Amino acid sequence: MYRSHTCGELNATHINTTVTLSGWVQKSRDKGFMIWVDLRDRYGITQLIFDTERTPKDVVEKAKTLGREFVIQVKGSVIERESKNPNIATGDIEILVEELIVLNEALLPPFTIEDNTDGGEDIRMKYRYLDIRRNPVKNSLMFRHQVGMQVRNYLSNQGFIEVETPYLIKSTPEGARDFVVPSRMNEGQFYALPQSPQTFKQLLMVGGMDKYFQIVKCFRDEDLRADRQPEFTQIDCEMAFVNQEDILSIFEGMTRHLLKEIKDVAINKFPRMTYDEAMRTYGNDKPDIRFDMKFGELNAVAQHKEFKVFNDAELVVGIAVPGAASYTRKEIDKLIDWVKRPQVGALGMVYVKCNEDGSYKSSVDKFYDQDDLAKWAEATGAKAGDLICVLSGQTNKVRAQLSALRMEMAERLGLRNPEEFAPLWVVDFPLLEWDEETERYHAMHHPFTSPKPEDIPLLETDPGKVRANAYDLVLNGNEIGGGSIRIHDKNTQALMFDHLGFTPEEAKAQFGFLMDAFQYGAPPHGGLAFGFDRLVAILGGQETIRDFIAFPKNNSGRDVMIDAPAAIDNDQLQELSIQLSIQE
Amino acid sequence: MYRSHTCGELNATHINTTVTLSGWVQKSRDKGFMIWVDLRDRYGITQLIFDTERTPKDVVEKAKTLGREFVIQVKGSVIERESKNPNIATGDIEILVEELIVLNEALLPPFTIEDNTDGGEDIRMKYRYLDIRRNPVKNSLMFRHQVGMQVRNYLSNQGFIEVETPYLIKSTPEGARDFVVPSRMNEGQFYALPQSPQTFKQLLMVGGMDKYFQIVKCFRDEDLRADRQPEFTQIDCEMAFVNQEDILSIFEGMTRHLLKEIKDVAINKFPRMTYDEAMRTYGNDKPDIRFDMKFGELNAVAQHKEFKVFNDAELVVGIAVPGAASYTRKEIDKLIDWVKRPQVGALGMVYVKCNEDGSYKSSVDKFYDQDDLAKWAEATGAKAGDLICVLSGQTNKVRAQLSALRMEMAERLGLRNPEEFAPLWVVDFPLLEWDEETERYHAMHHPFTSPKPEDIPLLETDPGKVRANAYDLVLNGNEIGGGSIRIHDKNTQALMFDHLGFTPEEAKAQFGFLMDAFQYGAPPHGGLAFGFDRLVAILGGQETIRDFIAFPKNNSGRDVMIDAPAAIDNDQLQELSIQLSIQE
Repeated sequence: MYRSHTCGELNATHINTTVTLSGWVQKSRDKGFMIWVDLRDRYGITQLIFDTERTPKDVVEKAKTLGREFVIQVKGSVIERESKNPNIATGDIEILVEELIVLNEALLPPFTIEDNTDGGEDIRMKYRYLDIRRNPVKNSLMFRHQVGMQVRNYLSNQGFIEVETPYLIKSTPEGARDFVVPSRMNEGQFYALPQSPQTFKQLLMVGGMDKYFQIVKCFRDEDLRADRQPEFTQIDCEMAFVNQEDILSIFEGMTRHLLKEIKDVAINKFPRMTYDEAMRTYGNDKPDIRFDMKFGELNAVAQHKEFKVFNDAELVVGIAVPGAASYTRKEIDKLIDWVKRPQVGALGMVYVKCNEDGSYKSSVDKFYDQDDLAKWAEATGAKAGDLICVLSGQTNKVRAQLSALRMEMAERLGLRNPEEFAPLWVVDFPLLEWDEETERYHAMHHPFTSPKPEDIPLLETDPGKVRANAYDLVLNGNEIGGGSIRIHDKNTQALMFDHLGFTPEEAKAQFGFLMDAFQYGAPPHGGLAFGFDRLVAILGGQETIRDFIAFPKNNSGRDVMIDAPAAIDNDQLQELSIQLSIQE
Repeated sequence: MYRSHTCGELNATHINTTVTLSGWVQKSRDKGFMIWVDLRDRYGITQLIFDTERTPKDVVEKAKTLGREFVIQVKGSVIERESKNPNIATGDIEILVEELIVLNEALLPPFTIEDNTDGGEDIRMKYRYLDIRRNPVKNSLMFRHQVGMQVRNYLSNQGFIEVETPYLIKSTPEGARDFVVPSRMNEGQFYALPQSPQTFKQLLMVGGMDKYFQIVKCFRDEDLRADRQPEFTQIDCEMAFVNQEDILSIFEGMTRHLLKEIKDVAINKFPRMTYDEAMRTYGNDKPDIRFDMKFGELNAVAQHKEFKVFNDAELVVGIAVPGAASYTRKEIDKLIDWVKRPQVGALGMVYVKCNEDGSYKSSVDKFYDQDDLAKWAEATGAKAGDLICVLSGQTNKVRAQLSALRMEMAERLGLRNPEEFAPLWVVDFPLLEWDEETERYHAMHHPFTSPKPEDIPLLETDPGKVRANAYDLVLNGNEIGGGSIRIHDKNTQALMFDHLGFTPEEAKAQFGFLMDAFQYGAPPHGGLAFGFDRLVAILGGQETIRDFIAFPKNNSGRDVMIDAPAAIDNDQLQELSIQLSIQE
């Protein structure tokens, strides 16, 4: 037996009992006549004391040789600590050590195992097994487990069945790039790893499974943006005999449950907003509604004067930044530089200071009088003391730019409180979006999303205007889930493939099994999927997912700890009937 | 709203309420003046009645057009059924239909959606989404979900943390064949899909995670034997600061919990047996101990006469088949044919009938007298009325043959009751096993298994005799789990790799990260993994796993429903910097 207790559970009630503990040496202090060692395990830290008067001499000698991160086992008695530490659970006691066994020695770790480490990202990833010993990472992984258990228990109690769908499936050119797996037994053929279990969960609905969920790994071979992983985890759900309202209601319930159980936060409002309204009001389909700064469109009140920039613009739009009228000229110039950075891309910014005396001072005073500016203030909801920031240009671009500015100002003003949670449904997404590169329409969600029945005629006349029964769940400015009511009849699905540029033969080759299935009694169905990595990170009060993943990959898709991917044997290639195209 | 209730919940208490149901037409009976329809969903079957006197005429007409597996929605009132059906939960009531909506039509399914279907394996797999509508498959998948939830909740309550380990890892030539994934971003390099998360879970122990589990997909590119799948699911577990006893105790607890919660079976005995004893007593390292027929070794009492076959044999061994002394000569001849089949491989079989009068009648009476045969009866535990079956030859082979016969006789005698559960730990497995093909030792479990410290010197002198701290959990003659205490220091791991024929360079190239990790304070640790597919099947009273997997692959590794694997585009191959070796 390596331990009678963990390093996190002993307190004053255990005084005078004999205990055995095992763990890692967090640190030691050698005062000559006395040595203190902080012993750490997953559960906490317990202070050990080796005392030349009370501890056997050889044990004291051995204690002097202990280095950081040595793995040891000690036996001793629990005694009251002289100077108590109220910050830790075991702070009232310490262990007077009688026996000491070194279970394993340790080299000096390449970075300190502390909450605030001196290790940079690269070295921490190479030695991820040491990084995981640090509280911020360890606690994030344990937090992830708790969220996963809550999700599973909630959905299971609601009658959902977790069904495992296959990982070795078929590649489809639609959507993102697939990872593929050469098949040895089927020469020249490949499996693909799933980008999501989409078609399988729909087949489960055809199969009568009624309510399905799965917490499941998915794979996308994309050029990695920051904070994206080639393998990621999804909470995948599907329900039969439901309309959109049924689905929103179930997953609103799940979100409330998670926030209550995990964060002890009760959500009052759970608003819904159409995609159009989100774009108009926040310039963004995943608005952070923890704070205000709603967009005010100014075309009507800013395009009647000689200011050519605005007159030529498709959209003139502003936000009122609370309390920022006090910005100096220099501060405002820096802000203008900020919106002109390539990442934001604005050509310039017009501002209006709303002075405390009710007057306005703007960068376009020679074009607009106080009455004009008062109307701008009204449209943006600006109050005395606010700074109105106005951008103009092509609608989509200017909305994205002003949205970036809105988020930046909220960040600077401390309005993005990670312990406040504001969920939001965004509904009525467009069915299709125009792709500039390929010059055709793509499915905004995926090709299985059902158009709103009343919009189907628009498919012929104005495809971009067709709305879908599609919805996203947004939390604190992040899309954490999205889904739709699906097409469940062969004809609508064929129509959809047609509008996406599939020939009937291509549609049959790739999705014939699904269209066949629709002929054998497919029920109406729909669902959604949550990005589990991001959900956990946001619940954990963070915006980056990496510390909530035990062994993440870097931006080149490499695992630097195990050094993968790597070359494989020629024998292996031969067995798979493939060869490298490059010359070595 | 598609339904107010499911098809499994209405009973006499609902009489006179108006309800809406949705589901599939299981079958309909048209008596002219009345039509009955069985409406099915995941939850059950409810009888609908369309009555020319009480149901609107157009609804009756529409009902006449309903075919099997049509998806419909009905509104009507719950009424008492005239002839009640006590076999189903809703058997007291039926729905007098007022409104009928056909949600989707259905082609005639290619096999009947009944418990006993007329569909063969192939067609059922091609239309798996229809097969899942059948109770035996649907219930198996729901059962699997229940077992998964119980496992997760049990382990979580025991302090285990579920940690997701990566699916895109590194290929290692040791062990079974890997599935590999070409990396687009790292030209000429490949990921591998994990055969198990073995090294990652050990790194989690080095990382202080203390108790880890995961229900996780694993992958092996093997030539498929019957009832094996290229992707399968494992309950993977690891613990730090434990010895073998701690691990056996936790998972004995889990097994008892599952049997109690899932099957309401309380397990009294949970025996342990060494590998040597299992081989000697049952000829098998996963004995089914629900029944007796223990092996009796007969060398001492059968090799003193002129019977050359026995005298030349390394092992003479028999079992007493209860009650089989009554077998006719013809029946015994058929049994001898059975053991001589190539799948069993015996050269012949000697038998002894233990007559009710205490006398013996054997096939070798000219060599052995009644006293000799009495000693055989004693060694095999045979009683009056039993048939002693004796095989002889090379020890390993004859044990395997007699074990096969033992299982066959148990099957014939109805001793393998699927509702009786007899778990067993088999411990002290050999560390290494000799591989005839490569003429070297292989790790019996895997290269990370710890030898018993007292046996380490034998590594130099008699490697095959070294025992490992390795154990299997056996349930009803199936290995459902296996694990070991791991090596946790670099030197022992290097010694092990050396004995497995790795050069130090090879060991470093493949497992350098693990050996590095062992230098930074690795705790003693161990664990095990359960085959989840098989565990679920056995708990479900079945020996084949296929119906407990939603979308299984066939013996060529194909998913015949989606037709995968398949050819991929040349563009895709080019992006991955690979090409096919075969000429098309």
